[in-house]
Amino acid sequence: MIQDENRKKSLNWEKDTEGSKMVKVCVVGMGRAGKLHAQNFAEKIKNAELKAVVDPVEEIVKEAGGELGVPYYKNLENALAKEDFDAVIICTPSFTHASLIIESAEHGKHILCEKPLVLNLEEAERITKIENGGVKFQVGYVRRFDRYYLEAKKRIDAGEIGTPLIFKNTARDPFLPSGWIADPSLSGGIFLDMLSHDFDMARWLMGKEVREVEARGGAWFYEETKEKGDQDLVGVLLVFEKEGIGLVEGCRKCAYGYDLRTEVVGSEGTLMVGSPYDPNFSIGKRDGITPRKAQWFWERFEEAFLEEDKHFIECIVENKEPLVSGMDGRKALEIALAARTSLKARKPVYL
Amino acid sequence: MIQDENRKKSLNWEKDTEGSKMVKVCVVGMGRAGKLHAQNFAEKIKNAELKAVVDPVEEIVKEAGGELGVPYYKNLENALAKEDFDAVIICTPSFTHASLIIESAEHGKHILCEKPLVLNLEEAERITKIENGGVKFQVGYVRRFDRYYLEAKKRIDAGEIGTPLIFKNTARDPFLPSGWIADPSLSGGIFLDMLSHDFDMARWLMGKEVREVEARGGAWFYEETKEKGDQDLVGVLLVFEKEGIGLVEGCRKCAYGYDLRTEVVGSEGTLMVGSPYDPNFSIGKRDGITPRKAQWFWERFEEAFLEEDKHFIECIVENKEPLVSGMDGRKALEIALAARTSLKARKPVYL
Amino acid sequence: MIQDENRKKSLNWEKDTEGSKMVKVCVVGMGRAGKLHAQNFAEKIKNAELKAVVDPVEEIVKEAGGELGVPYYKNLENALAKEDFDAVIICTPSFTHASLIIESAEHGKHILCEKPLVLNLEEAERITKIENGGVKFQVGYVRRFDRYYLEAKKRIDAGEIGTPLIFKNTARDPFLPSGWIADPSLSGGIFLDMLSHDFDMARWLMGKEVREVEARGGAWFYEETKEKGDQDLVGVLLVFEKEGIGLVEGCRKCAYGYDLRTEVVGSEGTLMVGSPYDPNFSIGKRDGITPRKAQWFWERFEEAFLEEDKHFIECIVENKEPLVSGMDGRKALEIALAARTSLKARKPVYL
Amino acid sequence: MIQDENRKKSLNWEKDTEGSKMVKVCVVGMGRAGKLHAQNFAEKIKNAELKAVVDPVEEIVKEAGGELGVPYYKNLENALAKEDFDAVIICTPSFTHASLIIESAEHGKHILCEKPLVLNLEEAERITKIENGGVKFQVGYVRRFDRYYLEAKKRIDAGEIGTPLIFKNTARDPFLPSGWIADPSLSGGIFLDMLSHDFDMARWLMGKEVREVEARGGAWFYEETKEKGDQDLVGVLLVFEKEGIGLVEGCRKCAYGYDLRTEVVGSEGTLMVGSPYDPNFSIGKRDGITPRKAQWFWERFEEAFLEEDKHFIECIVENKEPLVSGMDGRKALEIALAARTSLKARKPVYL
Repeated sequence: MIQDENRKKSLNWEKDTEGSKMVKVCVVGMGRAGKLHAQNFAEKIKNAELKAVVDPVEEIVKEAGGELGVPYYKNLENALAKEDFDAVIICTPSFTHASLIIESAEHGKHILCEKPLVLNLEEAERITKIENGGVKFQVGYVRRFDRYYLEAKKRIDAGEIGTPLIFKNTARDPFLPSGWIADPSLSGGIFLDMLSHDFDMARWLMGKEVREVEARGGAWFYEETKEKGDQDLVGVLLVFEKEGIGLVEGCRKCAYGYDLRTEVVGSEGTLMVGSPYDPNFSIGKRDGITPRKAQWFWERFEEAFLEEDKHFIECIVENKEPLVSGMDGRKALEIALAARTSLKARKPVYL
Repeated sequence: MIQDENRKKSLNWEKDTEGSKMVKVCVVGMGRAGKLHAQNFAEKIKNAELKAVVDPVEEIVKEAGGELGVPYYKNLENALAKEDFDAVIICTPSFTHASLIIESAEHGKHILCEKPLVLNLEEAERITKIENGGVKFQVGYVRRFDRYYLEAKKRIDAGEIGTPLIFKNTARDPFLPSGWIADPSLSGGIFLDMLSHDFDMARWLMGKEVREVEARGGAWFYEETKEKGDQDLVGVLLVFEKEGIGLVEGCRKCAYGYDLRTEVVGSEGTLMVGSPYDPNFSIGKRDGITPRKAQWFWERFEEAFLEEDKHFIECIVENKEPLVSGMDGRKALEIALAARTSLKARKPVYL
Repeated sequence: MIQDENRKKSLNWEKDTEGSKMVKVCVVGMGRAGKLHAQNFAEKIKNAELKAVVDPVEEIVKEAGGELGVPYYKNLENALAKEDFDAVIICTPSFTHASLIIESAEHGKHILCEKPLVLNLEEAERITKIENGGVKFQVGYVRRFDRYYLEAKKRIDAGEIGTPLIFKNTARDPFLPSGWIADPSLSGGIFLDMLSHDFDMARWLMGKEVREVEARGGAWFYEETKEKGDQDLVGVLLVFEKEGIGLVEGCRKCAYGYDLRTEVVGSEGTLMVGSPYDPNFSIGKRDGITPRKAQWFWERFEEAFLEEDKHFIECIVENKEPLVSGMDGRKALEIALAARTSLKARKPVYL
Repeated sequence: MIQDENRKKSLNWEKDTEGSKMVKVCVVGMGRAGKLHAQNFAEKIKNAELKAVVDPVEEIVKEAGGELGVPYYKNLENALAKEDFDAVIICTPSFTHASLIIESAEHGKHILCEKPLVLNLEEAERITKIENGGVKFQVGYVRRFDRYYLEAKKRIDAGEIGTPLIFKNTARDPFLPSGWIADPSLSGGIFLDMLSHDFDMARWLMGKEVREVEARGGAWFYEETKEKGDQDLVGVLLVFEKEGIGLVEGCRKCAYGYDLRTEVVGSEGTLMVGSPYDPNFSIGKRDGITPRKAQWFWERFEEAFLEEDKHFIECIVENKEPLVSGMDGRKALEIALAARTSLKARKPVYL
C-alpha cells in the first residue's frame, strides 16, 4: 500500500538524517494554517526546529509564542534581525505573500508559502526570478501530500486508467470563511483562494496543462459575498492541451458539512477520491441510516500538512527541488485568474 | 450478467410454450401474498390462467374475485367441486397448510405452498408422502428466485469464494405483522414464520445441512408478543455438517425500515447480498447525508415472486421437479423447530 | 413513500377506467425502445390495445408482429390506411420524427414521440403548431417517470433543499451505441441524442430555464466518432435564468458499466439520484470488495417506461395534458443545439 | 463533534499539566504493540518520559533502545534495579502478563497491561488484589479510546437508540498472526487473544453483563491452527442480563483485508461502527468499482493507542481511576474462557 511506503519513507528519512543539521524555521502568520505548520516544525519533524513566530496582532502572536515556547515578533523584519533561521513559512493573508517572499529571499531564506502563491501575474513574475536564486521554494498545495491523492497520482501515472480525459472536482465548504478570506481584495476571491487547490489538482492529476477556461457563478448564498463582488458558487469548464476537459465546482456553503470529491476518468477506467460522508459510523433512526459527516478540511488534511512540511525540510537537507514549485503556484494562479476574468466577461479565456 | 440470462430464459420459455396447454390455477388465501400470486397468474404468465380464488372471508374474496375477474369461493372444497383447474396455490395462514395440501393432493392438483410448509413434523411427515404421488409440489421460499441470491448461489457453486464457511443473516422487519402472523399458534412464531426463509437460505447457499442449532432471544419490543409466548428478537447459532457455522438474527422491529442482509464467507472470499438502504436516492441536510430506505419486502421480492410462479408453471408444463421441494420445506422446518426448542430449553438441539 | 403512492395511483387509475374505452395504439420503429413500448401497450396497460407495429425492415417487423400477435407494416402510411388506431408511438431514428409526427397529426392521431423531439428548430417550429390541434402530444423523456427522479422533483418542489442552485449530471454509457445513433446526421449527435435527457432534467428539476450554454469536448474514445464529426466525451456549463448553474458530463465509454448520477444542490441541502454501482450484491476477494455494476439503462428505466406509457394513455382517456409537452421537447432541443454550436465555435451561446 | 472535543480535551490537558511532574515509563515487550506504546510515550505525550525498554531477545531490545534513545534490558528485574520509573507498560506475550503485573505492583509501579489481562481465573484473582494496592491499573482495550466507538458509546448512553438489545460484531483478520499468538497455550487462543476485544465492547456498549455464552467454530483455514488445538473461525451467541443478545464472529483469514464492524441495535434505532472498505478512494475498471481496503488494525487504531496512553498518564498525574480497570479485564476474560469451554463441551456456559 502506498500509505505504508510513504510512512516508511518518511520514517527512514528521519532516521537517516539523525545527527544531520537542523533546519531552523520561522513561521509568519498565526492563523489556523500557520499554527498547524508551527506545531509540525516544533514537535513532529525530527530535524526541524521552530525558532520564531510572527504575526502583526500582538495578542495572537504572544499567545502562539507562549504555547510553542519560541520568541515572537510582530513583523518578519524584526525576526530576521534578531533570530537565526534558515527558512520562512508564509501563512499570512494572500495579499501579503509577494512582499514576504521577496523579503525572505533577499535574506537567503528557503520559503514554504501557503496557496495561492500571489494575487496577480506581476507579482508572480517577480517571484519566478527568486526561484532561480538558490533558495528552496515550495508552494502549499497540501493535497499533493495526501495519501489518497498520492495514490490516485501514482495509479494514473502507472497507466491504470489509460489516458486521463476528464477531471471532475466538487469542493464544498460548510460555511463562508471569516476574516480576510471573505474579502476578495485580500484573498483573491473564490477562484484564487478556494479553487486554486482544485486547479493545481487538475494539472497534476491529468498531467497536462489547461489551455482554456470558462467560468460562471454568482453570490447566491451570502449577502456579504455579493457586496464584496465575490462569488460563493461557481462552475468552471476547463479544456486541457491535446485532449481532455474539466468540470469544477466550488461552493461556499454546504448543509451537510465539508464535501471534497475528485474524479479522474481515463480511457480505461476511473479514479475517485473523497467521500461526502464517513462510513465508519452510522446511525439508523426513523428517517433512515445516516453516516457521520466527512472530516472537515483541517482534520482531513492534518496528515498531509505534516507530510508537506517534512518534504520541505527534506528538500533543504538533501538539496532536492520541492515537488510543488513556484511555477506550479504560478500555473494554478493563471487558471484562477482566467476563471475570474471569464466569469466577469462571460466568455472563454485562453491560456 | 445473470439477470439478463434469467430474464431471457423466462422470456424464451414463454415463447417456446406458446400454443402449449394452459395451466389453470386456483389461489387459496387472499392476503397480500395470495393476491400477488393471483395477479401473477392472471396477468403476467403467458401459459397460466387464473380460474378461481378462495378465502373464507366473504368480503375479501368477493372483492378479490371482482378485481381479478374470476369466480370466488369461501372454501377450497367448493372451488374443487365447481371449477376446473390443475394447480392450487396455498397462501393461507400457516396452520391451515397441512389440510389444504392434503385436500389438493387428493384431487390430483399440483401445489405451490407458501412458507413455512407446515407447523410440525407430524404434518410434514404426511406431506412428504404426497410428494411421491405424481403431482408437482413446490414450497414458496421466494428468495431462491431473487436475482441477487441467485447470483450468490451461482458464484458460490462456481467456487468463487472457495469452501463456504460462515453463513450470516440479518433480517429485520420494520414492524410487527398484524393478524394471524402475530399469533404463534397459527403462524409457528418468529422461527417458523420469519426465519424459515433464512434457514432455507442457510442450507441452499452453504450447500450443506445444519446439524446443530442454538437459539436465544426474547419478547423485548412488543407486549403482545410477550403475552402470546413468542419472541420479537432472536439470535441463532448454527453448526453445519462437515465444517462451517451460521449466525442468524431475526428482529421484528426496525426503526429505519426493512433490513435484509446475507453474507457467506468462504475460504477464498466473501459474498454480500442486501443493503440496509437504497443508494439511488440520497438527501443531504444539516444532519448529514441520508440515503433512501431499502425497499420493503413486497417490492424487494416482487420480481422474485413472479419468477417463482413462472418456475412452478414451467415445472408442470415441462414435467420437471420444482427447485424448492417439499423436502426443502421440511428441512427448514426442522431447523426452525429446533431453534424454538433450543430457545425454550436453553440448550443446543442436534439434527 | 412516493413509490407506493405512484403505484397505487396507477393501479387505481386502471381500476377506475375499467369498462372505459380502449386506446388503440400503433408503434412505429421496432428497435429496442419500440419493442419495449409495444410490449407495454400489448400486455401491461389495461385500457390500451396494441393494434399494429411498423418498421421499414421486413425481417424485423415481421418477427416483432409475430411475437406481439399484431399486424405489421413497413410504413406508417399503410398502417394508417388498413388499421384503426387512436395513437402513434414514434420510436424511429430521430431524423424521421418530424415527418412521422406531422403525418400522424394530420390523421388526428395522438402522439408519443421518443426523444429528441426533432433535429432542428425549423422542424420544431412545425411541430409546435401541431400541439394546438387537439391531439395529445407527449415527448419521451422517460426519466420524468422514474421513481427516484420523481421523488427528487417532489422534494425540491416542497422546498426541502431551498432554492435549487446547482444542477450536476454525470451520464456515462458503457459503449458506443451502434447503428444510426452513431451517425450524428441521423441522431443529432451526443448532445441531442444522449444529453437531451440531461438537459430536460436540468429544466425540470431546477424549475428554471437555461439562458446560456458553454460546451467543450472531443472524440477521444472512438475513431468512428471522430470520423463522423461527433464527440464521445463532452462537458457543458449551463447558466440558469435568475440564479444557478449547471455542470453536465456526457461520456460514451465507461469501463465499469452504465453510470448515471444527478445532483441538485440548493441553498439548504442537496439531493442525489443514482449510484455508480448496485449495493445489493458485493463480492470480496483479494483486490477488495466490489459491488455489482449498476443496472444498464433498459433495466434501470424499465418501470419508468411503463409509467410513461400509462401516463400517455391516461392523458388520452381523461383528456389531460401530458406532463412532457412538445414545448418541453423543444426547450431541451434548444439547449442541445446551443451546446453543439458552443462546442464548434468555442464560445458561449445565449438562449 | 466528539472527535474535536476529545482532541481539545487532550490538548488542553497537555497544556494544563505543563510544568507538572513527568511520568517516567518503562515498556516491556518490543513487539509491534510495545514499540507503538514506547514511541507514544517517548515522543507524543508531553508529560510522559520513556526511561527504558525491556525484551528478552537481545537483538530486538538493543535495536529498539537505539531507535528510541533509551537504555534497554533483557528483563524487567534488571530495569527495576537500574532505572527510575513510575509505570510499567506490559506488552509481552499474554502468558507472561500475570507475573509481570505482580512484579511491577510489588515495586509500586503503575501498570498498563495489554489485553487479554491474563490467561486464567486464578491469575485474574491474584491481579484483582493488586488493584486495591494504590497503583493505577489499566487494561489495554484500545477500542475504548477510538473516536468512533466513543461516539457510539456516548450516543447509546444518551439514549439515542433506546435500550440496547443486540450486540453484533464481525472481526476478521487478514491473516493468521505469526509467532506466539498462533500458539494457544501462550496467547489463550482465538477467544482470549482476538475476541476479548469484542467481549469488552459487548459489555461496554450494551452497558450490561453477559450471563450466558455459546460458542462454536473450527480450525478450517490453517493446518497449523488445527494442530495446536485452536480455532480460526468462531461464532459466539451471548445472552445479556435482563434483556438482549449478542452475535459475535471471529475469523483469522479475510481475503479482502481487515474487517471490523460493530452494530448495536436498540429499541429505537441502530448504531454501526466500522466499514469493510475505505470510501475515500475507489478505482473503477472492467470488473466494477472497487473501493480501497479498510485500514489494517495498526493504522485503524493508531490514534486510539495514543489516546489510551494519554489516558493512562492522565490517570496517574491527576490521581483518577483508569476507564478500563482490572475488573474489566477480568470480565472480558470470563466471557472468553466461557466461550472456549462452550465450544469444547458443545453446551452453553453460564456466568
